[in-house]
Amino acid sequence: MSLRSPFIIFVVMKNERLIFVTNDDGYSSKGFQAAIEVARRFGNVVAVAPERAQSGMSQAITIYNPLYVNTIRAEEGLEIYSLSGTPVDCVKMAFDYMLRDRKVDLVISGINHGSNSAVNVLYSGTMGAAIEGSFYDCPSVGLSLTSHDADADFTAAVYYGTQVVESVLAADMPLPLCLNVNVPVGTVDEIKGVRVCRQTRGCWREEFYCRRDPHNRDYFWLTGDFHNSEPDAEDTDEWALNHGYVSVVPVQVDLTDYAQMERLKKLM
Amino acid sequence: MSLRSPFIIFVVMKNERLIFVTNDDGYSSKGFQAAIEVARRFGNVVAVAPERAQSGMSQAITIYNPLYVNTIRAEEGLEIYSLSGTPVDCVKMAFDYMLRDRKVDLVISGINHGSNSAVNVLYSGTMGAAIEGSFYDCPSVGLSLTSHDADADFTAAVYYGTQVVESVLAADMPLPLCLNVNVPVGTVDEIKGVRVCRQTRGCWREEFYCRRDPHNRDYFWLTGDFHNSEPDAEDTDEWALNHGYVSVVPVQVDLTDYAQMERLKKLM
Repeated sequence: MSLRSPFIIFVVMKNERLIFVTNDDGYSSKGFQAAIEVARRFGNVVAVAPERAQSGMSQAITIYNPLYVNTIRAEEGLEIYSLSGTPVDCVKMAFDYMLRDRKVDLVISGINHGSNSAVNVLYSGTMGAAIEGSFYDCPSVGLSLTSHDADADFTAAVYYGTQVVESVLAADMPLPLCLNVNVPVGTVDEIKGVRVCRQTRGCWREEFYCRRDPHNRDYFWLTGDFHNSEPDAEDTDEWALNHGYVSVVPVQVDLTDYAQMERLKKLM
Repeated sequence: MSLRSPFIIFVVMKNERLIFVTNDDGYSSKGFQAAIEVARRFGNVVAVAPERAQSGMSQAITIYNPLYVNTIRAEEGLEIYSLSGTPVDCVKMAFDYMLRDRKVDLVISGINHGSNSAVNVLYSGTMGAAIEGSFYDCPSVGLSLTSHDADADFTAAVYYGTQVVESVLAADMPLPLCLNVNVPVGTVDEIKGVRVCRQTRGCWREEFYCRRDPHNRDYFWLTGDFHNSEPDAEDTDEWALNHGYVSVVPVQVDLTDYAQMERLKKLM
């Protein structure tokens, strides 16, 4: 038995563009409001975001638990829901249930509090949701600001996020299209512009802090540093961000390593 | 303060190969024992696996919670630990804490109960851990059996997993090297052999089951079907598995979509 969705009351009645918004910091984050501000410039908005922070959740899905939805706000042109799951759960819930009879024109995921450049694209819940969004026949844009501050200033991120979305919608690019957009800290004027980049090579090396809890058990807490393998490569997203540019990396989902594939064919 | 690891008592004293094993179904799963069986054929084994099932956890990391380690077994040549985190946490805990002064020769993640072919590579905790393992300068192999049965027969998966690992170690292939190996259900003789493949194009479309809980709240449960966009493509992993072959897909972590990058450069 699959019940009719009780959601989506106003938006379905209008004939404008429909933008879906999600994030990984949760529906109450400042960056989520900033993403909605970008989206509202392009059409009606349905937003489904995690009820709690889900940073580092990658493309995780909830298999072992049921999901609960709450209506946060429902007015003409803007409906916001929270979901007790991961960012990818939010995308699936929206496209395969709430909006399953509707054409969605664009996905925006973010605006993340913190950079998702380089290999962070693999761990990021924001980018996990953006990638998932690109599976539903519309362009998908992940937006991040390189500040973890809960009260960060999103003015420039909204400005450049709007610019990127406008270009994408105007160009009618071939699908699938998923963009990883990172905006450095700074004012609109301080930022030098937008650079299309490739993903920087590098990885994280962690430091585990060990403490003893009140029950006398050792616990460990993950922390670490990103090691950039190519700090001088001017075509990378890390270079762009470190030099005051907005980075735009198009993201694909075919993980096949074709060079290794040829070597393996000879081997096996 | 970072305390010295109290772990790894026996293994550090020997001079054989060191194999790290993890999975996403948890340390008590039958497939995990099967992966250890494969690993023991090649050297000493340190295994760190989630204390609870973590299917669908992708490359998620634990940011908001501390992690606890338990020793499950410690004997000469084989040490098994459980961790209260994700599969990727297990890899990081092993390489950046427990084994940080040791050279690891190989990572094995699995053997997963269920296929990780096609786009499942993106959602899979098994493959999230395998990808993470490939960041630590050794070959990394994710092994999966196309059966979700908790009591599945892993004989053929152990046989072919051993064969693939043997080839990889003997060939001394360039790094990074991460393999997504899927084994169909069947006996060793029924399976037709090993095929090196590319990742099948396709995606999941979900069905949300809605029920009412004892507190009269609606809940949703994720379920769905994989849609194969190219069922007849003989060079894909889905085709191989559906025709009785073991599939081997080399996995990369550069998600840059270079074709879209060129289009975007003209646009922006």
